[in-house]
Amino acid sequence: MNTDRFNMEAAALAGYTSADAVEHLNTFEPADAASLLAVLPQEQAIEILEQPELQNAPEIINEMRPNVAVRLLNEVANDRLTDIFQELDETSRARLISGLDHKVRIAIQKLMRYPERTAGSLMTTEFVSVPGDWTVGQTLDLVKRVQGTRETVYAIYVLDPDNGTLQTVVTLRRLITGEPDDPVLSVAQTDTLVTVSPLEDQADVAHEIRRHNMLALPVVDESRHILGIVTVDDMIDAMIEDSTDDALKFGGMETLDKPYMKIGFFSMIRKRAGWLAALFLGEMLTASAMQHYEIALEKAIVLTLFIPLIMSSGGNSGSQATSLLIRSLALQEIRLRDWWRVALREIPTGITLGAILGAIGVIRIIIWQKAGFYDYGEHWVLIAITVGFALVGIVTFGSFTGSMLPFILQRIGFDPASASAPFVATLVDVTGLIIYFSVAVAVLSGTLL
Amino acid sequence: MNTDRFNMEAAALAGYTSADAVEHLNTFEPADAASLLAVLPQEQAIEILEQPELQNAPEIINEMRPNVAVRLLNEVANDRLTDIFQELDETSRARLISGLDHKVRIAIQKLMRYPERTAGSLMTTEFVSVPGDWTVGQTLDLVKRVQGTRETVYAIYVLDPDNGTLQTVVTLRRLITGEPDDPVLSVAQTDTLVTVSPLEDQADVAHEIRRHNMLALPVVDESRHILGIVTVDDMIDAMIEDSTDDALKFGGMETLDKPYMKIGFFSMIRKRAGWLAALFLGEMLTASAMQHYEIALEKAIVLTLFIPLIMSSGGNSGSQATSLLIRSLALQEIRLRDWWRVALREIPTGITLGAILGAIGVIRIIIWQKAGFYDYGEHWVLIAITVGFALVGIVTFGSFTGSMLPFILQRIGFDPASASAPFVATLVDVTGLIIYFSVAVAVLSGTLL
Repeated sequence: MNTDRFNMEAAALAGYTSADAVEHLNTFEPADAASLLAVLPQEQAIEILEQPELQNAPEIINEMRPNVAVRLLNEVANDRLTDIFQELDETSRARLISGLDHKVRIAIQKLMRYPERTAGSLMTTEFVSVPGDWTVGQTLDLVKRVQGTRETVYAIYVLDPDNGTLQTVVTLRRLITGEPDDPVLSVAQTDTLVTVSPLEDQADVAHEIRRHNMLALPVVDESRHILGIVTVDDMIDAMIEDSTDDALKFGGMETLDKPYMKIGFFSMIRKRAGWLAALFLGEMLTASAMQHYEIALEKAIVLTLFIPLIMSSGGNSGSQATSLLIRSLALQEIRLRDWWRVALREIPTGITLGAILGAIGVIRIIIWQKAGFYDYGEHWVLIAITVGFALVGIVTFGSFTGSMLPFILQRIGFDPASASAPFVATLVDVTGLIIYFSVAVAVLSGTLL
Repeated sequence: MNTDRFNMEAAALAGYTSADAVEHLNTFEPADAASLLAVLPQEQAIEILEQPELQNAPEIINEMRPNVAVRLLNEVANDRLTDIFQELDETSRARLISGLDHKVRIAIQKLMRYPERTAGSLMTTEFVSVPGDWTVGQTLDLVKRVQGTRETVYAIYVLDPDNGTLQTVVTLRRLITGEPDDPVLSVAQTDTLVTVSPLEDQADVAHEIRRHNMLALPVVDESRHILGIVTVDDMIDAMIEDSTDDALKFGGMETLDKPYMKIGFFSMIRKRAGWLAALFLGEMLTASAMQHYEIALEKAIVLTLFIPLIMSSGGNSGSQATSLLIRSLALQEIRLRDWWRVALREIPTGITLGAILGAIGVIRIIIWQKAGFYDYGEHWVLIAITVGFALVGIVTFGSFTGSMLPFILQRIGFDPASASAPFVATLVDVTGLIIYFSVAVAVLSGTLL
């Protein structure tokens, strides 16, 4: 970038909201983005670095002069700072961490120890807490003083003055209704306080925050000392990440850590080839099943015409049922122990849906035969019957298998959302062929077979 | 429920958080839930009715004596009240609405006019606003007085004292840092205020709230008068609803308005049969394609063995690409105009993935032939070549079609998330068969064909 363009861009950025500035900076190379951040007002540069939407934060930090980087990073919220440090390579991390303020360094070293996607990795240690023997006035003064350096001050945590354990919470809206000399406990929440442990899964954290409509959820250790809080906006980012992962998994992909356009060609191939190849190997069983019925196929080539139609109907009904049950389990509308209720619903549902498709299939064969579009041979009525019954069997099997798969995965300790549409289709395809040929042998033996 | 059980349940509920109480009430019949709500402390009953997770709110209201219902409903936040009223039948709605306080009635009649899934239908009219010539002290006094009746007081909207248009916002955390006699504008936000129109789609509202990490987003009319605010917790519920709908649509289902177990058998059939039947009709084209190649099939029955394998590979690669692009478009990582960049990536990606699967397929045929598991006949080498090249063609076509479909849907005004895995598979199946047989004719003509 030449100097004119640089000055122009810097001036433009200064007038943007941080969300817009992030979007604009995402279009630059990290080196240019680093130079631009260095000349922006410090407060704005910090706000930009705090957005998880900034795509190349670690690369941008790497391109900055270390003293500039450290000056900015010292002020970044420490949950976000931890995320940035976790993506830096070992060398830069070591170089930068020594320059951070002592307190910041201790905080992020602690945060970096929690595994990804846990409450501990999402939380910030920048919250407000006061001893339970303080007054409303003392608390309000503290909030006024520290509000610029805390992610949220709308929930203030009240600690036991003797042992420092978490006692309760007071919201800022309630705090301001108290008289300055009232004890802070007089305006505190009287309900049981909802807390999570630092190793709680982020999906469960999201569930709790949503269930109780909280702005922040405290994270406590076994002795009920508060370690940090997960705020609602960090939780929203985690939710979006989770639902993206689930959507990709359902499509039969590994999850991606970068936006589509930022992923290199070969990592994209790696992310996609694994599942495709695994499904391909599973699907090879269809070739074996077909080989098994080769004699029947030779005698009644007309049967092959309906193979794709019948297989896909099984896959489609399975994919419907799986997507339905994955969501119901994720939203906790249904529990693991309800599997048999679901089975008892899916079997009649499958039979009904199969009968509808079977009827359409039979009508199709009758019309084509009668109108002379195609001649299915002298036994066309039996072929229509075969197709009709096979569809009932396959759609029932598809609905049943598709609905049970998420339960089985959850039971054996996997995420039910690992059940993908292609996975279900592959499971159903082999059985679908066997059902089809078994029906054909039963209906057509003595005539065509 | 007998009296003993009833008293026990009522006593237990009184000790629950509202989230737990909602979960417990969801297990009761509406009539019992209504009796229990009527005996709970009024404040708790209102909080319970405010949870969107309460599954039968309209039925419960219907079971209450009208004077009890009206007394509670008058205090329910009016965005939630609107949702409940929208689900009531015409008669109960008319009967109850006349009993509501005048102000509440006017508010919900206004809110009910906005279409579902818009900012207008999500917003609450219970926010705090002050004229721009007020002082910090006056504003704080108002907040203290009204905080019990407002969904949020953390954002206070500042209106132009002359014409009442929305000027800016002041957060409660900043407000408390001001001196009582300072003008409220001295602590107000100086950045441009983000607003939306009442007809904005809820997905875009969610995107703005997330982008700017807001706790509430103001909704304004054309002349910039504030109509209401969308709070972050209402937005989270809307996001979950949207991602559930998207997940179901991707599985090839219509969206559901109730949890799995609460949907009647026949409405479940209706929700699923439509798409299944439509896909079935589309998939019938495969039978026509097969009929077209019947002569080839008769001559080379060995070709049929690989039909399921090849078709499913096309479907799987298409489903991967579709899920990937639906998410990228939804997260606005990619815009409509980027379609050609995506096409330029997906074609080489598809060729590479197809070559990988093709190689596995060829190796499988070689092993089976050489090890004597199966005899593909004297032309087995040509058959292996056919399968290999067909896989390259089909996976490339699948990845390309799957990636373009969300763009096409968005271009013609549909939601890209309407592209389902079964829909993509159906699209790819027919073409997949044509590719397979075309390759077969090219490679095998003069020998097998």
